[in-house]
Amino acid sequence: MFFASDNSGPVHPEVLQALAEANQGYAMAYGADALMNEVRDHIRGIFDAPGAAVYLVATGTAANVLALATLAQPWQTIFCSPVAHIHEDECNAPEFYSGAKLTLVPGGDKMTPEALRGAIAAEETRGVHGPQRGPVSITQVTERGSVYSLDELRALCGVAKEYGLPVHMDGARFANALVALDCSPAEMTWKAGVDAVSFGGTKNGLMGVEAVIFFDESKAWEFELRRKRGAHLFSKHRYLSAQMAAYLQDDLWLTSARRANANCARLVEGLRAAGADFLHEPQANIVFASFPRGTHKRLHKAGAVYHLWGAQLEGDDEDEPLACRLVCDWSLGGDQIDRFISLLA
Amino acid sequence: MFFASDNSGPVHPEVLQALAEANQGYAMAYGADALMNEVRDHIRGIFDAPGAAVYLVATGTAANVLALATLAQPWQTIFCSPVAHIHEDECNAPEFYSGAKLTLVPGGDKMTPEALRGAIAAEETRGVHGPQRGPVSITQVTERGSVYSLDELRALCGVAKEYGLPVHMDGARFANALVALDCSPAEMTWKAGVDAVSFGGTKNGLMGVEAVIFFDESKAWEFELRRKRGAHLFSKHRYLSAQMAAYLQDDLWLTSARRANANCARLVEGLRAAGADFLHEPQANIVFASFPRGTHKRLHKAGAVYHLWGAQLEGDDEDEPLACRLVCDWSLGGDQIDRFISLLA
Amino acid sequence: MFFASDNSGPVHPEVLQALAEANQGYAMAYGADALMNEVRDHIRGIFDAPGAAVYLVATGTAANVLALATLAQPWQTIFCSPVAHIHEDECNAPEFYSGAKLTLVPGGDKMTPEALRGAIAAEETRGVHGPQRGPVSITQVTERGSVYSLDELRALCGVAKEYGLPVHMDGARFANALVALDCSPAEMTWKAGVDAVSFGGTKNGLMGVEAVIFFDESKAWEFELRRKRGAHLFSKHRYLSAQMAAYLQDDLWLTSARRANANCARLVEGLRAAGADFLHEPQANIVFASFPRGTHKRLHKAGAVYHLWGAQLEGDDEDEPLACRLVCDWSLGGDQIDRFISLLA
Amino acid sequence: MFFASDNSGPVHPEVLQALAEANQGYAMAYGADALMNEVRDHIRGIFDAPGAAVYLVATGTAANVLALATLAQPWQTIFCSPVAHIHEDECNAPEFYSGAKLTLVPGGDKMTPEALRGAIAAEETRGVHGPQRGPVSITQVTERGSVYSLDELRALCGVAKEYGLPVHMDGARFANALVALDCSPAEMTWKAGVDAVSFGGTKNGLMGVEAVIFFDESKAWEFELRRKRGAHLFSKHRYLSAQMAAYLQDDLWLTSARRANANCARLVEGLRAAGADFLHEPQANIVFASFPRGTHKRLHKAGAVYHLWGAQLEGDDEDEPLACRLVCDWSLGGDQIDRFISLLA
Repeated sequence: MFFASDNSGPVHPEVLQALAEANQGYAMAYGADALMNEVRDHIRGIFDAPGAAVYLVATGTAANVLALATLAQPWQTIFCSPVAHIHEDECNAPEFYSGAKLTLVPGGDKMTPEALRGAIAAEETRGVHGPQRGPVSITQVTERGSVYSLDELRALCGVAKEYGLPVHMDGARFANALVALDCSPAEMTWKAGVDAVSFGGTKNGLMGVEAVIFFDESKAWEFELRRKRGAHLFSKHRYLSAQMAAYLQDDLWLTSARRANANCARLVEGLRAAGADFLHEPQANIVFASFPRGTHKRLHKAGAVYHLWGAQLEGDDEDEPLACRLVCDWSLGGDQIDRFISLLA
Repeated sequence: MFFASDNSGPVHPEVLQALAEANQGYAMAYGADALMNEVRDHIRGIFDAPGAAVYLVATGTAANVLALATLAQPWQTIFCSPVAHIHEDECNAPEFYSGAKLTLVPGGDKMTPEALRGAIAAEETRGVHGPQRGPVSITQVTERGSVYSLDELRALCGVAKEYGLPVHMDGARFANALVALDCSPAEMTWKAGVDAVSFGGTKNGLMGVEAVIFFDESKAWEFELRRKRGAHLFSKHRYLSAQMAAYLQDDLWLTSARRANANCARLVEGLRAAGADFLHEPQANIVFASFPRGTHKRLHKAGAVYHLWGAQLEGDDEDEPLACRLVCDWSLGGDQIDRFISLLA
Repeated sequence: MFFASDNSGPVHPEVLQALAEANQGYAMAYGADALMNEVRDHIRGIFDAPGAAVYLVATGTAANVLALATLAQPWQTIFCSPVAHIHEDECNAPEFYSGAKLTLVPGGDKMTPEALRGAIAAEETRGVHGPQRGPVSITQVTERGSVYSLDELRALCGVAKEYGLPVHMDGARFANALVALDCSPAEMTWKAGVDAVSFGGTKNGLMGVEAVIFFDESKAWEFELRRKRGAHLFSKHRYLSAQMAAYLQDDLWLTSARRANANCARLVEGLRAAGADFLHEPQANIVFASFPRGTHKRLHKAGAVYHLWGAQLEGDDEDEPLACRLVCDWSLGGDQIDRFISLLA
Repeated sequence: MFFASDNSGPVHPEVLQALAEANQGYAMAYGADALMNEVRDHIRGIFDAPGAAVYLVATGTAANVLALATLAQPWQTIFCSPVAHIHEDECNAPEFYSGAKLTLVPGGDKMTPEALRGAIAAEETRGVHGPQRGPVSITQVTERGSVYSLDELRALCGVAKEYGLPVHMDGARFANALVALDCSPAEMTWKAGVDAVSFGGTKNGLMGVEAVIFFDESKAWEFELRRKRGAHLFSKHRYLSAQMAAYLQDDLWLTSARRANANCARLVEGLRAAGADFLHEPQANIVFASFPRGTHKRLHKAGAVYHLWGAQLEGDDEDEPLACRLVCDWSLGGDQIDRFISLLA
């Protein structure tokens, strides 16, 4: 019963298999491996973007900050949600790589077009004194488990475009959002107005690989230099390529994401039946739910692993509702979910 | 006949096996995996350094620049060889991470204590105007395939200590140097005066793992923050741990390095017999040799892969000696070397 | 009728006179001038801080960002008001110099101890993932013309000290606050818990000089290196020293600030009599007031210079109240204020 | 007898007078003062460059590093002399502002086109691994008192242009070079191939003002943002403008530089007559000469102030030649020089 995070699960067996297959003889280093050519073509095909620049890095933070540093100038700001991963969970890496300041768009987890427009308009009224407007970063799936609809994405990107600002998508859970929306990668990105994507793999069955995709390839060489200067260029790059190749092969990425989301839906159903409250509408593979302390204690005792959210298990009031975060990954077995649900009752 | 680099070879099968074994169920993320505890203890034991701080990153450049940034202040210089990897092959990553300037110690590949003392003495004669003296970085094995003797290491570190400067060792090929010297890890590092080590694995059979070791653990927390801020902290860290665990298990790292060095010795013997000249005395797994263009052409035609060194294969003068670099890794088969040698004749 | 800013007024004649007197023969460069010794002693005396480190720079932003960079680590945050100069008006200079992120303490212009505690407590709950807690920066006089009382300062610093965080005071209008509080420099700084001060001169009659004062001198050498590396060390430093010496001589700084504040009080009285509303309680030399568009038009026509605040002069509704900012410096003549007031009626 | 540096002398009386004249009433802050418009036009006229972008900063290091940061990318190198001020005397400010690495062109004080070509050619042979080629920085007058001829400048810039690299001129002593060459500012800069100039004033009679000139104004806005972000934008900017206006008025800058150079020529004549050796051919206002310790002792005793160069006054051998640096500024009286010379004999 492991619901702590989708970064703690195992690697999909097909990915391990691909690593073994790639482990034959010599291969050109630093991204010049033949597998990378396949990966690039595959991603271009999936995104219907024949001219896209495609790169691999090993961590989600690297993908985000290298993409943002390529889009932002050091005297600009990056507009994002107050709970964005780049703001809360990357220990100033975005500032380190880009020099830019993060401007938090007021509101909750999901940015609204109105709030974004307000935040953009409020800036750059001070000439050279204030920081200048820079890229907008959208997290899809959000940190609270929500998924922006295509209309919402288009509206946000539309605001950015009004001001001539580029848009980055933090897609650490890109696949989970895509299958939730049941749309094409192109629709969820460049057709909506997104310029660069962190295309996550690690949370969905890879060992540690994320792609960075620029739909305008004029930034490609700068990105390559930034990746090397950031110490993120792998010599034995073929092992990144092999993971990503396996991820894309036969839609493994989509199958895994569907499984994670289905796991989550099953869990949500059980929570709902047990009378739990939801802090956010769960739309992908993450749930924020609230139920009595006594139930939490029972679950913990039975070995369930997950994070309480701004709450403490210790306490006498067994009926007090405590919030928690539950994350489902592709590898979770249905029996684990059923057992969790049975303990809720 | 692949002699281009030791970063292009395959991963040792035992390492792949270890990855498969680590791929069971859930594991704590971000370095809190149980395997990392084993690795830390193992490295502390190997280095006879019970209090050492031990961390894993995925690239050699990350290991170098994170270690150096922890040792240097942004207004200081880092003393290194003019052909150091940190100067020539890391696209300003050391400057990016540390803010410091690299001061090139005059001379060749290997720094001499006299030249180092001269370079240090020449600095910091300008008060606040010039950059201040900072760490010394020693590459062992050097970029030209030389190995500093223990006496040489002690002398260099001694100069650094005279001035109160910390010493970093870029040990991308640490194991190759160690078996060449036939000494203990402690002797080659802290007993000689080294404060921090980039302990390489990638060039010696791993997929992409290097350890960073600080013998004084007071820098540990700062390093952890720098690693995260540099986007080099892996969520699924267990797969780094598993590689390093396999590397250390049953002295695989030493066995592999011995094999690489032996491969190289066999190659050197062949080159010597064929009358080649050596640009540097080969002491580990890298040779810089010079022999006629005609021979190079014959080798290339037969499929040998390696880098010419400041020379062009094209040309009419078949007798003109052309320099090249030949690197042997652990995976190279003796038959490949023999075939190469036979083509030299 | 110039109320646009206190950075647009002239230099006090005694300061010009001091520059002329300093302009004799040769003087040691880079801060080694004899006048600087006098200035250092004088400031130490005024602050009752015999061991303080004292430096001069030429811009308020330089004072703030060099002080903050000395107090903060690149993986930390700096806590400040959402309308702090360092956040809104320094074009990412704080991030550039320190690497740190600015965390905006929720609320208005003035930070409350409760809001500060909340902001601090909310951080660093994520281990290595989130940025770490760093210095607190307090603006005295605030950007909206308020003055923190000694009790308020002590309470804010007390919260910082609970968490072991250093405190910086942006005292671009230090003198205006001091005379408003009628307390000693020591009481308003180190006795309240402040560790470093940007001690402004430029807005109060100097050409371009601010002192940076560290009450703990252990940061002194680092500050000197940061100042030089930031290109803020003047060769002909005596002309900075001479300005500051004149500023301190015979309490010119206090006299000038009193005059500025008195000018402002007179203006406030007139505004109040004319029925204007105040956006903030004016406590030093800045007023934020609101009165009808028609009155603004009359003032502008008559040559009054000041900034409307989030409002447009153009418009048909003559009765609509428009907000504005009015700043009084020491050089403003009483007749200008009277004329302004007479136009209000 | 003050020959220590041209940054220790007084400010020209006309400059002080201009400050007093500028000290009337209110002026727009941050470079929007009317005097700056005059200065911009004046400099454009002097340089025969109607479209040039012109900015003022207060230190020579600020001028250099802001100009270089605007020309260089963080993954590039800046080619310069091994004794360039930006390398030896700016405490890593160029690296801080630009992120780039300084590549020292082998040779002495003055770069030769051959050495520059060699240094450029040697770089960027490593693809993404090594730093990329960036701007060339030429110091005119050099740090050793030499002046590049127009032919030499054209040749150096020609090499830079072959590789598409921009050229920066560190003209801290621009005027001294110009009068030594007796050419036009345009000839010494953009007509020779220079793209950006640090146009010094501080060493030639100003209090602390340098202009930065870009002949291609497309970099103007970026420069303005970099200047603000570097904390180098003055609020009371009119006092920078006033200094520069006085400097240009009636060719004060040229008159002062001629005087400094003439002072130096007189000194050189005396040194030559006294049998001194010259380390470099003195061509502007700096001399590096060598003469017996006994003579140095006599001069020091008589109150002469200057720097010995890699030598110690203390010592028994009165005949041992000791090197020194002697700098003449515009303010030096002929009697001081004569007295110095008389003591040489």
